[in-house]
Amino acid sequence: MFLLKPACLVLFLISSALSQGDPHPQSLTYLWPLPAQFASGDDVLSVDPALTLSVAGNGGASPILRAAFDRYRRIVFDHAGYGYGYGFIRKLRERLPLVSVTQYDVVTLNVTVHSDNDELQLGVDESYTLVVPKAKESSQVTLEANTVYGALRGLETFSQLCSFDYTTKTVKIYKAPWSIQDKPRFAFRGLLLDTSRHYFPINVIKQIIEAMSYAKLNVLHWHIIDEESFPLEVPTYPKLWKGSYTKWERYTVEDAYDIVNFAKMRGINVMAEVDVPGHAESWGAGYPDLWPSPSCREPLDVSKTFTFDVISGILTDMRKIFPFELFHLGGDEVNTDCWRSTSHIKGWLQNHNMTTNDAYQYFVLKAQEIAVSKNWSPVNWEETFNTFPSKLHPKTIVHNWLGPGVCPKVVAKGFRCIYSNQGVWYLDHLDVPWDEVYTAEPLEGINTASEQELVIGGEVCMWGETVDTSNVQQTIWPRAAAAAERLWSQRDSTSPQNVTLTALPRFQNFRCLLNKRGVPAAPVTNFYARRAPVGPGSCYEQ
Amino acid sequence: MFLLKPACLVLFLISSALSQGDPHPQSLTYLWPLPAQFASGDDVLSVDPALTLSVAGNGGASPILRAAFDRYRRIVFDHAGYGYGYGFIRKLRERLPLVSVTQYDVVTLNVTVHSDNDELQLGVDESYTLVVPKAKESSQVTLEANTVYGALRGLETFSQLCSFDYTTKTVKIYKAPWSIQDKPRFAFRGLLLDTSRHYFPINVIKQIIEAMSYAKLNVLHWHIIDEESFPLEVPTYPKLWKGSYTKWERYTVEDAYDIVNFAKMRGINVMAEVDVPGHAESWGAGYPDLWPSPSCREPLDVSKTFTFDVISGILTDMRKIFPFELFHLGGDEVNTDCWRSTSHIKGWLQNHNMTTNDAYQYFVLKAQEIAVSKNWSPVNWEETFNTFPSKLHPKTIVHNWLGPGVCPKVVAKGFRCIYSNQGVWYLDHLDVPWDEVYTAEPLEGINTASEQELVIGGEVCMWGETVDTSNVQQTIWPRAAAAAERLWSQRDSTSPQNVTLTALPRFQNFRCLLNKRGVPAAPVTNFYARRAPVGPGSCYEQ
Repeated sequence: MFLLKPACLVLFLISSALSQGDPHPQSLTYLWPLPAQFASGDDVLSVDPALTLSVAGNGGASPILRAAFDRYRRIVFDHAGYGYGYGFIRKLRERLPLVSVTQYDVVTLNVTVHSDNDELQLGVDESYTLVVPKAKESSQVTLEANTVYGALRGLETFSQLCSFDYTTKTVKIYKAPWSIQDKPRFAFRGLLLDTSRHYFPINVIKQIIEAMSYAKLNVLHWHIIDEESFPLEVPTYPKLWKGSYTKWERYTVEDAYDIVNFAKMRGINVMAEVDVPGHAESWGAGYPDLWPSPSCREPLDVSKTFTFDVISGILTDMRKIFPFELFHLGGDEVNTDCWRSTSHIKGWLQNHNMTTNDAYQYFVLKAQEIAVSKNWSPVNWEETFNTFPSKLHPKTIVHNWLGPGVCPKVVAKGFRCIYSNQGVWYLDHLDVPWDEVYTAEPLEGINTASEQELVIGGEVCMWGETVDTSNVQQTIWPRAAAAAERLWSQRDSTSPQNVTLTALPRFQNFRCLLNKRGVPAAPVTNFYARRAPVGPGSCYEQ
Repeated sequence: MFLLKPACLVLFLISSALSQGDPHPQSLTYLWPLPAQFASGDDVLSVDPALTLSVAGNGGASPILRAAFDRYRRIVFDHAGYGYGYGFIRKLRERLPLVSVTQYDVVTLNVTVHSDNDELQLGVDESYTLVVPKAKESSQVTLEANTVYGALRGLETFSQLCSFDYTTKTVKIYKAPWSIQDKPRFAFRGLLLDTSRHYFPINVIKQIIEAMSYAKLNVLHWHIIDEESFPLEVPTYPKLWKGSYTKWERYTVEDAYDIVNFAKMRGINVMAEVDVPGHAESWGAGYPDLWPSPSCREPLDVSKTFTFDVISGILTDMRKIFPFELFHLGGDEVNTDCWRSTSHIKGWLQNHNMTTNDAYQYFVLKAQEIAVSKNWSPVNWEETFNTFPSKLHPKTIVHNWLGPGVCPKVVAKGFRCIYSNQGVWYLDHLDVPWDEVYTAEPLEGINTASEQELVIGGEVCMWGETVDTSNVQQTIWPRAAAAAERLWSQRDSTSPQNVTLTALPRFQNFRCLLNKRGVPAAPVTNFYARRAPVGPGSCYEQ
């Protein structure tokens, strides 16, 4: 057993992978995303299907930990064990030269969580240490973390070390002993889900959140409403969800709270978005006064107090549902033609001596003020920064999307930045192959440590125009997982020259792991994302 | 409240649906498949989230019933109820004019199951009567069935009567009172799943079975093995699953048993297939002697006793796993070139004075004999009937696929038939729109009652060449449900001239119901099946 930084390990292993010509070379480490530091050996351990959880530390009694352990036990032991069913199956197999397993090597998972604080916020400590013993040395696997969220990440890693051995019908851990010290590279590792262009049932959102936890993503950016539909209940302005497609395509306050809670149990924050002043036509279905006019419906009417009353009401209600300290205020793609062409707004602009651009800035800053007054850090799409960089609230986090090179400018001005360059991290761009997603680099062009620290992370965006319940998950997966490794793993361990050798087999393996867990992740190497496999074949090669 | 045969009701309602111009006209009955007889009223009942099950009859205590009730309760109450979460949500909504619900109309589901026999076989009684009371008349919904499987079908219907009312945050039953007498038109309502061209994890197979129960399908035709891979463990010939794609893409005996049991809990039989003598190349990965020669690998070597020993061994092992009385022996697409071109087989043919066609017949009949000796009714693809109709075992069920007009010939000869005309019921034919699937008629061209009775039903086929875990479910759904209504509902209630008015809105509603339950059913009206939605929009209109 020897401790190596993964980069060295990977280089060391390339030649053996090549010589095997195996699509799934045993020499690689099949963990996704790759841990910060790890070492392994050559032992094989069996894991008791009655694996028990033993806890320690101030946070050991957390119900979040208990629930996660139960979930992962179901995942790890997803095959019916030897002799499941009736006696006749045992009889059926009597003639087989089965390895008799009466004693298992691993019987306990010992988890220590030092802190009893389970508040989930940006930058929460997600580090953990996972130790799997040598054969015969101990029957305990130990997992140690400062917070319960670190323990969740460690449980995911543990589950990926376990695999079902079809010969003995037991779960095995190969390459033991393992020593893993892990922590994320970025604090913000997001996925945007757009529930306005198509409505996603609660069930489906939960499936997506569950799968995010497998890839160690930790922020669901919930783009709840947009111009096409307003599915969310807002108790203060109860007519707003008249803007939903139908009365069945809605989220109650309870639904939203349920999603936040479901996500928290998996260490995932929910960052809600209310995209103003553009992308808001649907608001007027319930309150037509929010439209500049019935025939010119976007952006929201900047001239009315009522507009900001409604925004304030929405944010007041949402503050009680979304505890995450970041709140997304949109601000993108604002076409101010309706302001210019509607006479009462035109008059208002003249009275206030404003251009439409001034009014755009006025609107965004006023919305920021409301959010900040509710103790939120406002997030805005990059157009706000591109248009009036010096005016934004200093707490603003700028969300890049239009192209490369934006975060360098943002952090140079002292703002924080989220990287979502659409050329590589917009999942609705179906022609971006997995390796371009994988090799995208949020810190590209940012060279000083102090500026690098202002890039809090990145996010892949699943816009909803051409995805609904039937195809959203295979459009998200597996490519979102390519970004997830970029965001979790150390830069030097994941940027070697030949990702076809160092990452592709691991990535295909992770896609098959998602499939096994019931997630419909698409073939990896299709030129267009989410396309059907071209013909019969193994998951591990498609 | 008045009792009408659905056909009349449908005609009666067309005009009002038209005049509304509503994509989801309230006048239709949103049940899929449509029950044999039903009547409804105008009351609205609320359903207690603590709905309890009360049972009666010899079969009332069945664990199958209890488990189904628990599943359906989770489905019906999938939205977090009013006030879920913390007190602040209640507070948040205090200002809202909420209908206060302190007492619910429906508090108990009373289920009577007359028989305690829970054997699941072809033709098991699936009939049920479901009665929902008028408002204030009773707090009980009653469901009565002869078998637990009838009760399962009734529970599905009950769940489709329930819908979540977003205003009061309670589950409602509209159009009460309801009186429903229901039973299936055909005993065999199948879906073929091919796990050889692509391997499907246990998890995914279970998701498919679960969704089948929503459409009242009742046979999973498990096309387990084929020329590309042999994923199933066969204890008697343990090297056979060497023919799996990888050592991780396999089913143990326990897995297969688990699937059979999972299906039985949902009233679904599993009909296994061992397709001989063609489609069997993968067998030789473990036992190369089964190939005519290493360079000519299909069909199985007809000249060797060993070939039939292996088939007999497989069937002996499988008999212990698959209790269904039907077993599929394939027999399709047999290209006998390898028999003709391999010298030892050529010699054997000469010695036995057989043509290759004789040998094909010899092989199929020998396999039938083995299956019949194990108390199975053999099912064979239609080529066997087309080639030697008079030689087939009288218990044979002929499985149509090549085109229309086959079942009429089959039943004229006194054999039973399963309808799967590939032009309409092969789900991998992506260019067949939902209405062509829907209007296909298994009894086309069969006019006498005695011959009609020999058509035991039909099956939609999901061949696996271009489907894997990522896209199998949206290729199956929603079109499989179109066939499901054809197979369950009475012919006269589902064959009116204008299915766009009588079936389409109900079908779109059922697709959205599948989505709500987490099943990725694809848009209904796309020209090509499983395509992405063309743009933003409501599930109910796409």
